[in-house]
Amino acid sequence: MAKVIDFQTDPTKYHHWRVDIDGNVASLFMDVDEKGGLFDGYELKLNSYDLGVDIELADVVQRMRFEHPEVGAVVMRSGKDNVFCAGANIRMLGGAEHTHKVNFCKFTNETRNTFEVAGADSQQTYICAVKGSCAGGGYELALACDYIMLADDGTSSVALPEVPLLAVLPGTGGLTRVTDKRKVRRDRADVFCSIEEGVRGKRAVDWNLVDEVVPNSKFNDTVAERAAGFAARNDQNKTAVGIQLTPLQRAFSEDGSVTYSTVEVDLDRTAGIVTITINGPENDAPATVGALHDEGAETWMLRAARELDDAILHLRFNELETGVVIFKTAGDAEKLRAHEALLLDNPDNWLARETLLYWKRVLKRVDLTSRSLVALVEPGSCFAGTLAELLFAVDRSYMAEGEFEGDNRPIAAITLTAANFGPHPMGNDLTRLETRFLGTPEAVESAKVSIGQPLEADEADELGLITYAFDDIDWEDEIRVFLEERTSFSPDAMTGMEANLRFAGPETMETRIFGRLTAWQNWIFQRPNAVGENGALQRYGTGRRGEYDKRRV
Amino acid sequence: MAKVIDFQTDPTKYHHWRVDIDGNVASLFMDVDEKGGLFDGYELKLNSYDLGVDIELADVVQRMRFEHPEVGAVVMRSGKDNVFCAGANIRMLGGAEHTHKVNFCKFTNETRNTFEVAGADSQQTYICAVKGSCAGGGYELALACDYIMLADDGTSSVALPEVPLLAVLPGTGGLTRVTDKRKVRRDRADVFCSIEEGVRGKRAVDWNLVDEVVPNSKFNDTVAERAAGFAARNDQNKTAVGIQLTPLQRAFSEDGSVTYSTVEVDLDRTAGIVTITINGPENDAPATVGALHDEGAETWMLRAARELDDAILHLRFNELETGVVIFKTAGDAEKLRAHEALLLDNPDNWLARETLLYWKRVLKRVDLTSRSLVALVEPGSCFAGTLAELLFAVDRSYMAEGEFEGDNRPIAAITLTAANFGPHPMGNDLTRLETRFLGTPEAVESAKVSIGQPLEADEADELGLITYAFDDIDWEDEIRVFLEERTSFSPDAMTGMEANLRFAGPETMETRIFGRLTAWQNWIFQRPNAVGENGALQRYGTGRRGEYDKRRV
Repeated sequence: MAKVIDFQTDPTKYHHWRVDIDGNVASLFMDVDEKGGLFDGYELKLNSYDLGVDIELADVVQRMRFEHPEVGAVVMRSGKDNVFCAGANIRMLGGAEHTHKVNFCKFTNETRNTFEVAGADSQQTYICAVKGSCAGGGYELALACDYIMLADDGTSSVALPEVPLLAVLPGTGGLTRVTDKRKVRRDRADVFCSIEEGVRGKRAVDWNLVDEVVPNSKFNDTVAERAAGFAARNDQNKTAVGIQLTPLQRAFSEDGSVTYSTVEVDLDRTAGIVTITINGPENDAPATVGALHDEGAETWMLRAARELDDAILHLRFNELETGVVIFKTAGDAEKLRAHEALLLDNPDNWLARETLLYWKRVLKRVDLTSRSLVALVEPGSCFAGTLAELLFAVDRSYMAEGEFEGDNRPIAAITLTAANFGPHPMGNDLTRLETRFLGTPEAVESAKVSIGQPLEADEADELGLITYAFDDIDWEDEIRVFLEERTSFSPDAMTGMEANLRFAGPETMETRIFGRLTAWQNWIFQRPNAVGENGALQRYGTGRRGEYDKRRV
Repeated sequence: MAKVIDFQTDPTKYHHWRVDIDGNVASLFMDVDEKGGLFDGYELKLNSYDLGVDIELADVVQRMRFEHPEVGAVVMRSGKDNVFCAGANIRMLGGAEHTHKVNFCKFTNETRNTFEVAGADSQQTYICAVKGSCAGGGYELALACDYIMLADDGTSSVALPEVPLLAVLPGTGGLTRVTDKRKVRRDRADVFCSIEEGVRGKRAVDWNLVDEVVPNSKFNDTVAERAAGFAARNDQNKTAVGIQLTPLQRAFSEDGSVTYSTVEVDLDRTAGIVTITINGPENDAPATVGALHDEGAETWMLRAARELDDAILHLRFNELETGVVIFKTAGDAEKLRAHEALLLDNPDNWLARETLLYWKRVLKRVDLTSRSLVALVEPGSCFAGTLAELLFAVDRSYMAEGEFEGDNRPIAAITLTAANFGPHPMGNDLTRLETRFLGTPEAVESAKVSIGQPLEADEADELGLITYAFDDIDWEDEIRVFLEERTSFSPDAMTGMEANLRFAGPETMETRIFGRLTAWQNWIFQRPNAVGENGALQRYGTGRRGEYDKRRV
């Protein structure tokens, strides 16, 4: 699977999804092209999915928010008869390398989270209208929706058959959403997760696996009724007109580097280090929200978010041996602040709001990226507000102190804005500064006082905003030594350490999915009982069950 | 490592620990016998530990609470010069099977939790007085104490060198306690966990890695002063006189079965199923707390807890292929309730309180046992109060409905008591019933109304207390089919599923350690970068570092 995976698509290229928009209600049909798998060696039968199907879904969800803000309800349906969705394709999983399995699950989890919060964040509520069998990853799609309807036709069912059938977990949030979102009684959850054929009809409602079962004859009418009800809640955006998410400007080099319009990705494959530089805006901020809408996808705040998001996904999937990501910025912090301020100051404007919400998601994607993350705050950089969040997302930050000989760029400074104190919470529902200062909450207040002031290294250090400050005598050596050390460590130990150190404080369903559920699934994905020659994933479809080492761990 | 591991010991048998008690202060010296490893093939140098060392520590902690309730402060120290503790023995870990590594870590985690809560639960506060190097599992011992003192002698240090040195995590709570108990700033935690040599002196206090650094010359005096201060808080028990934890009565059979005085362990190795039957008290409850003290370790509530605890540990370590544990009870529920009531009604009596607290720990040990847990509520059983908690700890429960032909024992009934509504919280700090009814909190209130009433199957089912009720026509078949199904599943998938379904609701440091941290460590314990031929654990001590597959997952 050494093919380069591209996360950019658009509706003209979809193979697997169909979107029909009627007023404020969108219908989203999953109709997977069996022959349209991202890799060779499997067919996507029964609406099963691989990463390619999910890349399209992520695109659908993203465009729904920017191109169709008027939509208040999205009904997820199957485009096939008799089957809703059979979940992740087993042959794909059986053939995939460990790294791909784990990255695939993480991306699908992120996509589920994205449409799960669309209701609360953007009054765009996802409803799942299940007809036919809805199993495994299929039911996990449903679980991430706000409302699940099940046809009462004697055959439609919901199921999580992973454990009995495949010896793996329902790892795309399934177990966590069953216990913590649907709050299914734990012994019933145990039964449900042990039944290959799943649950249908009244029991599905009694156990709270779905919200409603509807007789077949009334199914379409009832779905339309519910959708209209949810759509009516989107009172803010009913008549909003979306913007178009135009294709990204980007160029790939032979050596793995990528150039976007605002983001540069410089890859050093030998060292296993990549530097992502975000160049701040060159133009002035749009003067009004009207001008913001005129700029559309070209406006700096949105463009940079899209480019950074794409760069991170590209690195995650296509540059596996790059273990360290260095974030840099360059540009005019004041200009950047003006761009950001227009968004912060116009919370009633849907585009301003959506752009900030998108940054929230991109920053969460950074938090969840299993590479060592470092920020270098150099002369001429613009770590302000939203970009300063990167300093609190990374594992360590280094800041240049004072003037650097022969460098005539402005002295390195950090500027906090209101964006550092609310709009970009982490998965644990705290801001990054609150998480950073869990033991000294008063430090958050001290930082707040400095909003708007360019903080040089000594002040930033005093406020606890950076890990280390070095002057131009020590700078290069210190960074070099650190990078040499970091790249010498075991990548797995780093992944485990970072997953634990990054998310202190309270837990949410989101942190549990990426922390606990994912970690157990990754463990199982290494176990011979699942992935060995005689394991369940390899034997799936052969008519023979997995042969298990019976020892409990 | 097929040797049978025994969790019973007593001070006359200790190889590795020494306890000095002086008034209300105990000093606990770790002085590991290099040659006293539990298995062959390694020496326990530099106060490194294996399971045998930890079994003694668990015994020390347990006896401190029952035999020395007058102790208010326990000072953990090293019995060796220049080293506090080097952590878990690496050669032992390198040679151990995956199952042993995982079980070992779980038990050590449970032991850390036990002395960590001793301060809050029993006013018995653990202080760690660190002189010499305190690394890895050594610092994790310290982290579980309430107060850490470090000698400021230029060499004493605390460290978590697992990641750089061994390519595994500080998995005995280390990472979690650094972020969530000590609340160390995350970038400092990242630095700290990357430095082999650790941190000493002022920086250790500045980063909150320890509570106090003390000049060498004043170290012993200051430790004594702090210990006296903590001990003074134990105002309830200053003059209490402990009871003796006499040796358990137990007999092992060839076929793996074990008979205790109140607990029977019937093993079916072929089927991979064990039945644990707890026989309720035959004697009347002690009439007064005076009588309770006279009975000492013989009193039913304490004896049954000790026996059940031992049985579970025995099964966890020595019967790995037994994947299903069936809990049964037999006896007179009214008698049992009277024994329990004496404890519940005398919260001011230390022995009554400690016995209930011990049940809390035993029940948590059940929650954390990675076997499929089932309860069968049969005619003649006594699932009342504390024993009824087992019904809410298991993955599923089956209850016999009505009379069973040819069975003249009393009809099966469950009796709830106050013990089901508070004294036995799970690791998530909710009661098992609160966790069970997370989605329907009113069901907890309905259950409460029935306190003291023997509930037959239809009522228990109505209240949601059991999974299934079957009459004597269906009973045997249903149980048989379920057990056949369960034992056919992949043990790993069951472990992962159970770890996720059992702990719904809020998270605590405890659930994070066993959920997130442990799962990541288990994953790493399967990765070639740690355990492969060229992995760090295998190469440790050879002078060559691990050779790593650089791909990030």
